[in-house]
Amino acid sequence: MISNTILSFAKSILCDVLNPGCIAIDATTGNGYDTVFLSRLAGGEGKVFGFDIQEDAIEQTEERLNEECLPENWTLFCSGHENMQELIPEEYHGRINIVMFNLGFLPGSDKTVITQAETTLKAVRSALALLCRGGVVSIAIYAGHPGGSEEDVAVREFCAELDYHAFRVIQSEMTNKPGYPIRMLFVTKL
Amino acid sequence: MISNTILSFAKSILCDVLNPGCIAIDATTGNGYDTVFLSRLAGGEGKVFGFDIQEDAIEQTEERLNEECLPENWTLFCSGHENMQELIPEEYHGRINIVMFNLGFLPGSDKTVITQAETTLKAVRSALALLCRGGVVSIAIYAGHPGGSEEDVAVREFCAELDYHAFRVIQSEMTNKPGYPIRMLFVTKL
Repeated sequence: MISNTILSFAKSILCDVLNPGCIAIDATTGNGYDTVFLSRLAGGEGKVFGFDIQEDAIEQTEERLNEECLPENWTLFCSGHENMQELIPEEYHGRINIVMFNLGFLPGSDKTVITQAETTLKAVRSALALLCRGGVVSIAIYAGHPGGSEEDVAVREFCAELDYHAFRVIQSEMTNKPGYPIRMLFVTKL
Repeated sequence: MISNTILSFAKSILCDVLNPGCIAIDATTGNGYDTVFLSRLAGGEGKVFGFDIQEDAIEQTEERLNEECLPENWTLFCSGHENMQELIPEEYHGRINIVMFNLGFLPGSDKTVITQAETTLKAVRSALALLCRGGVVSIAIYAGHPGGSEEDVAVREFCAELDYHAFRVIQSEMTNKPGYPIRMLFVTKL
């Protein structure tokens, strides 16, 4: 579905991959909107793991999940997403259908706390290892804030070098949007 | 839906826009595969117009359409796509839901007959004018053949300059594919 923003475009694509019973990771819960989106689509038989390094974000996400009367299919970790492989129970390894990353800073919060290329790349590597076949890692990258463009380049280069026989990497961007670009990466595990 | 190739990714996105009864244009029928795709989805109540400058292509497309037992919802023009505004009956202007462009040369044919930036841009302008609100122009761009990279740059620049209040332009590419890139542009009219 063609959409008004690149983020709604991404969600409409991911909806096709997200079926009831699926297992999802929100690698950057932030204000919790994506966690709610994942929890709703995963449903009572599914499972969602959420990560954020900021307590504020985890609290906001928990509040939002409780408000929305969603199934109790979620577990939140106040920890950097680079630790996902250690924190997610082993029974789920290789069974994850989707991992969503929304890089940058927490909207409405301290803009100096940003995701960093080094930990982001470690987290993306872990996410790819945790995926099942056909599973997808989606990454929204913002280059507008200080430090954003370094992370943007590093993440795109890392994904562009992934083995074509093991992964497919689609990069999408709204090219006529004024201001800084938002890029989406969709990495599918074959 | 995340797909194995950028072209199947594009088709899965366009499927969401293509409903029975819709009006479509295949701006470059080539070997006819996209025309068949459009004719099938448009159905008996819909309409498909196909353009190709090469007689071979129009013949191949006609044969393929006849083989597939599709509804007789199609009209082919052996003419450059830059003439679509003059050739499509006025009653359809402003009512087109989708226009597909597949730039470059006709596979298995004379590789020196290629789409050219100048006529392509004229055709894209016409296509945008013919669209209904919510309608989409999709463009597959190949940069691998002689003349391809000039057209690639010209079409992407033209689309990136489209007014954000009138159009949304999403550009997608498989960034880890070996060899020359294939880029997809999706231009939605607001």
